[in-house]
Amino acid sequence: MEKEELLYEGKAKKLFKTDQVGVLWVEYLDQATALNGAKKDVVQGKGELNNQITSLIFEALKAEEIPSHFIEKISKTEQLVKSVEIIPLEVVVRNRAAGSFSKRLDIPEGKALPFPIVEFYYKEDRLDDPFINDDHVLALEIATEEEITVIKELARKVNQALIKLFQKAAITLIDFKIEVGRTPAGEILLADEISPDTCRLWDTATDSHLDKDIYRRDLGDLVPVYQEVLARLSK
Amino acid sequence: MEKEELLYEGKAKKLFKTDQVGVLWVEYLDQATALNGAKKDVVQGKGELNNQITSLIFEALKAEEIPSHFIEKISKTEQLVKSVEIIPLEVVVRNRAAGSFSKRLDIPEGKALPFPIVEFYYKEDRLDDPFINDDHVLALEIATEEEITVIKELARKVNQALIKLFQKAAITLIDFKIEVGRTPAGEILLADEISPDTCRLWDTATDSHLDKDIYRRDLGDLVPVYQEVLARLSK
Ligand SMILES: Nc1ncnc2c1ncn2[C@@H]1O[C@H](COP(=O)(O)OP(=O)(O)OP(=O)(O)O)[C@@H](O)[C@H]1O
Ligand SMILES: Nc1ncnc2c1ncn2[C@@H]1O[C@H](COP(=O)(O)OP(=O)(O)OP(=O)(O)O)[C@@H](O)[C@H]1O
Ligand SMILES: [Mg+2]
Ligand SMILES: [Mg+2]
Repeated sequence: MEKEELLYEGKAKKLFKTDQVGVLWVEYLDQATALNGAKKDVVQGKGELNNQITSLIFEALKAEEIPSHFIEKISKTEQLVKSVEIIPLEVVVRNRAAGSFSKRLDIPEGKALPFPIVEFYYKEDRLDDPFINDDHVLALEIATEEEITVIKELARKVNQALIKLFQKAAITLIDFKIEVGRTPAGEILLADEISPDTCRLWDTATDSHLDKDIYRRDLGDLVPVYQEVLARLSK
Repeated sequence: MEKEELLYEGKAKKLFKTDQVGVLWVEYLDQATALNGAKKDVVQGKGELNNQITSLIFEALKAEEIPSHFIEKISKTEQLVKSVEIIPLEVVVRNRAAGSFSKRLDIPEGKALPFPIVEFYYKEDRLDDPFINDDHVLALEIATEEEITVIKELARKVNQALIKLFQKAAITLIDFKIEVGRTPAGEILLADEISPDTCRLWDTATDSHLDKDIYRRDLGDLVPVYQEVLARLSK
């Protein structure tokens, strides 16, 4: 497999074409951002950690028969994925209240929800990724009704698998965000990454943060925390 | 029917008990508010106009077999309604982009939507009536799944009836908000009011505002505008 031209440089990853149609080469970057990019720092070692964690997680999801873009990890900071047409949604699943959800509805952080709540945010930086409902998804032609059903089912299935995976690592999955995409054949695949950048993870024993809230809320150095997550998941 | 003690004094109406169980006496007030009560004024004649307009509309909806709380108009500013347990939702239906929807999604005011969009806002002044989705409605135990289905169907049916009614008055229904309630028997009824306070109405010929945006946006005197709406609907 040959790496070809840069397709997209995001806040956390670079995407390259390859000599194989439908296969992308992803490089994880040593960069942390928050507040829609307003806060931004170089964090040595983060790319490596997120590539390792997300690869491990996508492998585990494969074992649960969750269809994803993941092909294989090819180096400490790189992986190969199937190219998809990203559906411009941030699909959030919440098991416990936290973050914007807690603020908007005045529910204490950590409160268990009666069932996993799924939320759609319209992935559009220009608009600050607004929270939308199913009717908006349809009216904006972001996805069809059938796709919405598939996406929600996928999100809930990923949640169940992740809860199990993190539970074994003594980590509580508070919430997370996924992205999904369409293959040329119209199949919906889990895409992008699943890492402490995209999940809220609390140490089950102490409730301490094991995720990007460390960076968002200036609670200390992110690298040892992500190392801890990787170490626990690797056992 | 005897009017008994005051049950609730809102921003636009007073609700009284009556000597008949399950029947409330509503008095429409000469008061205009906006921005969740931050802007507030006495507007002579508004109570009378809104009582007349909402009574006329609820009569028209009755003819379309839409189940509502409305019993009868008993004076210029008063009506009798069936008491319900209000479901704490502001149910918004949008035919064209306007207001917060236009701002959040950067869609020009007046743009026709491909189908009527239904939105739920959690009616909770303390939280500033946040926009929520179906999962939130369920998790907060605001309504059951079956009730959500009934509420959405009711909202869409009200929309079709209102479009027709306003069309005859050369008025375009941009969007509106309804409230619904539960009877002791568990039936969902359309409640509260439908008036230029709760609808966005544009003159079909000129696109001028015939609704509370006149007050919200300081576009002039509200009374002649509401009189115009009443006059057109009465023809
Ligand atoms: N399999 C895939 N095929 C195509 N694009 C993908 C795939 N997986 C992820 N992407 C996209 O690649 C980009 C990843 O880069 P990164 O996470 O750094 O982006 P970002 O800074 O979060 O910006 P944004 O997600 O807003 O574009 C994202 O746009 C993501 O949607
Ligand atoms: N049939 C009904 N039975 C019981 N309550 C009703 C009924 N119809 C309307 N209401 C309630 O009566 C009140 C009407 O008063 P008003 O419209 O002035 O309230 P408001 O100032 O908008 O405040 P809020 O709606 O936030 O309570 C509202 O709380 C409304 O939900
Ligand atoms: Mg990203
Ligand atoms: Mg009201």
